[in-house]
Amino acid sequence: MTGIAKGAQPRSPVDLPVIATVIGDPGGIGPEVCVKALALKDTPFAARHILIGSVDALRIAAATSGLEVSFRQVGSPAEAGTDRAEIAIFDPETLPRAAWAIGKPGAASGRAVIEWIRLAEQWADEGRIDGWIMAPIDSDSLKLSGKIASIDDLQPAGTHLLRVSPRLRVVPITEHISIAEVPASVTIDSVSALIALIDDSFRKWGMTGARIGVAGLNPHAMGSEDRDTIAPAVERERAMGRRVEGPIPPDSIFRLAMDGRYDVVVSMYHDQGQIALKTAAFEGACTIYIGLDHVHLTVPHGSAMEIAGKGIAQHASMASAMKMAEALCAGKGFGYVA
Amino acid sequence: MTGIAKGAQPRSPVDLPVIATVIGDPGGIGPEVCVKALALKDTPFAARHILIGSVDALRIAAATSGLEVSFRQVGSPAEAGTDRAEIAIFDPETLPRAAWAIGKPGAASGRAVIEWIRLAEQWADEGRIDGWIMAPIDSDSLKLSGKIASIDDLQPAGTHLLRVSPRLRVVPITEHISIAEVPASVTIDSVSALIALIDDSFRKWGMTGARIGVAGLNPHAMGSEDRDTIAPAVERERAMGRRVEGPIPPDSIFRLAMDGRYDVVVSMYHDQGQIALKTAAFEGACTIYIGLDHVHLTVPHGSAMEIAGKGIAQHASMASAMKMAEALCAGKGFGYVA
Repeated sequence: MTGIAKGAQPRSPVDLPVIATVIGDPGGIGPEVCVKALALKDTPFAARHILIGSVDALRIAAATSGLEVSFRQVGSPAEAGTDRAEIAIFDPETLPRAAWAIGKPGAASGRAVIEWIRLAEQWADEGRIDGWIMAPIDSDSLKLSGKIASIDDLQPAGTHLLRVSPRLRVVPITEHISIAEVPASVTIDSVSALIALIDDSFRKWGMTGARIGVAGLNPHAMGSEDRDTIAPAVERERAMGRRVEGPIPPDSIFRLAMDGRYDVVVSMYHDQGQIALKTAAFEGACTIYIGLDHVHLTVPHGSAMEIAGKGIAQHASMASAMKMAEALCAGKGFGYVA
Repeated sequence: MTGIAKGAQPRSPVDLPVIATVIGDPGGIGPEVCVKALALKDTPFAARHILIGSVDALRIAAATSGLEVSFRQVGSPAEAGTDRAEIAIFDPETLPRAAWAIGKPGAASGRAVIEWIRLAEQWADEGRIDGWIMAPIDSDSLKLSGKIASIDDLQPAGTHLLRVSPRLRVVPITEHISIAEVPASVTIDSVSALIALIDDSFRKWGMTGARIGVAGLNPHAMGSEDRDTIAPAVERERAMGRRVEGPIPPDSIFRLAMDGRYDVVVSMYHDQGQIALKTAAFEGACTIYIGLDHVHLTVPHGSAMEIAGKGIAQHASMASAMKMAEALCAGKGFGYVA
C-alpha cells in the first residue's frame, strides 16, 4: 500500500486496533457516510474496521452513491478487515427490510439502533474492539422506539463530551442543563475532576502534558465563582503537576486556544464552548467521549433524513472521525500530524 | 475633493453633521489613534470633526507618528472642521503637561478624561454636536481619580451596547452581571423593550425593518425561559410589526447572522455574544450605545499604555468608528456601503 509515512513499517493487519462503527439510523445518511468514508478512505487503514447495522441499508447506500463496494457479513469483531472494496459488517438481522424506510424515522429503526449501540458497548467492555464510532442517529426514531426519553440518555454515565476540530478542543462540565442550573454545577470538585480526567485521557491518547485552559464562568472571569471555585480547582490540579491555567475570560480563551496557547479548553457550560466552535464553523469536527476505557466518537451532525438516499451526503466528518479513532487507539494523539 | 460617490452632490461643510471625539487617556494610545484616524482618513470627510482633550498629548502623538498635521484650538463645536491637515481641538486646559506621563495611568489623567466626557455629553444634550466618539480610556487612571468606582459607571443609564463588526452585530440584555443573575434579568419586558429599542434605533440610523434575531437563553433554546419568557416577548414585538425571530439556539444564531439571515442579534448575556464576536476575531469592530438621542460610539480596545508614545498603535478601529459615526449621523446605516 502506498502513502505510508516515511520510515514507518507497515504493520500486520492482526496487530492493528479494531474499530467498530454503528451505521446510525438506517433511514438517515448514516449508512451512506459510513460506506463513503471507508470505500473512499484517503489514508491507509491504520485499524481493522467493522460496521454494525443493517446490510440492506449499506447496500442501498453503496448503490445510490455509485460506489463499487461489497459487504462481507461476519460473526465477530475478530473478522474486521482492512479492505476498502469489501467491508466487514456485523448484522444481527433483527431489522426486516420492510420495517424501515429511507428518509423516515420509525420505531423499528430506533429499536435497531439501540440494539446496535448496546452491542458495540458490550464488545468494547469485553475488550473485543479498541474503539467505536456512532454514525448519526435520529431522535424521532429513538423516541418512537419507546426505549429512551432523549438522546442524552445514550451518553454513558460519568462521561464528558470533548469536541475536537483542527484548531479548537473543548470539554464542558455539563451539557443540556439550563443556565439557571449552571452555577451550582461548577464546584471545586467538578472542575478539578474534569481537569484531571482530561489530562489523563490525553496522556492515554499519546499527548502527555496537555496544556489545559479553564474558562471562567462570569464576564471577564471576575465573579465570585471564578475566584472562589475555579481558581482553587485549577490551583489544586497545578499542584498535582498538571499544565493548567485559569480562570481565563470566557470571551478570550477560545481565541487563545485557536492561536495555540492551549491544547484543550474546559468550558463551564454547553453554549460557552459551542458558540465558539459553531461560530468559527470548523469542518471535520468530531465528538469524543472522555471517561471511558475505550475510544468512542460520534460525528456532530444529524441524520439528515431529508437528503438520505440521494447519494449527496458529505462524509467529511465521518472520514475525520475514523482517522481520529485510528490515531487515538494507537496512542498517536488526534491524528492531525502524520 | 475626489472620492465622492458618483451622483452625490458635495455638501457645504456647514450642512455636515458635527462629531466630537474625546481623545481618551492622554497617557495611552488614544491621542495617537485619533490623530492618525483624522490625518490619514481614507474617505472624504462626511462630517465636521473636533477633538476634545489635551493639545499637548495630540502634538506629541503627531510628532511620534511622523505626521505633518497641526492643531487649531477652538472655543466651541461650531468651529469643527473638515481639514485633515489642521485638526480642530477643544482643550479646556485643565490638565498641565507636568501632571501626566506617556505610558502611565494617573489621577490627573483620570480626572481630565471624566471632564472631557462630561463636556461631550453636555454638547450632545444641548444639540451642539450630532455624535461623539470615545477613544480608549484607562480603568486605572479612572480609579485613581476617585471620581468613579468602575468603567461601567460611565455607561449612560438605560443604554445598551451594540457591538458592530462588518459581519455581526450583537446587543446583550445585560453587561457585567454574574451568570447566576442572568436568568432573573431575562423577562418578557426586558426582552421586548430591547427588541423595540433596537428596531427604533436602526430606523433612526436609516435601516428600516431590521431583521432581528433573538438568542435563546438555554442550550438549543429549549428551556423554560425560552418558552415562557423569550418566545412571548418576540411574539409581542412581531405583533407590533417588527421583523423579529426567536428564540434561536444560542450556538446557531451568530453563524446565521454572519451568513446574512439577521441584521442584528439580541443576546441574553454578555459572553453569549462576546464569545461569538471575539472567536470570529473581527477587525474594525466598534461599540455603539443605543438608547440615546445622539450617536455615541467607542472603540473596543484598551489604552495599551505599554505601546503608547511609540507611533506604532493601529488606528483601524478608530478609523472605522469615525466612518460609522459619520454614516449613523447622516441616517445612512453603518457605513459599510458607499
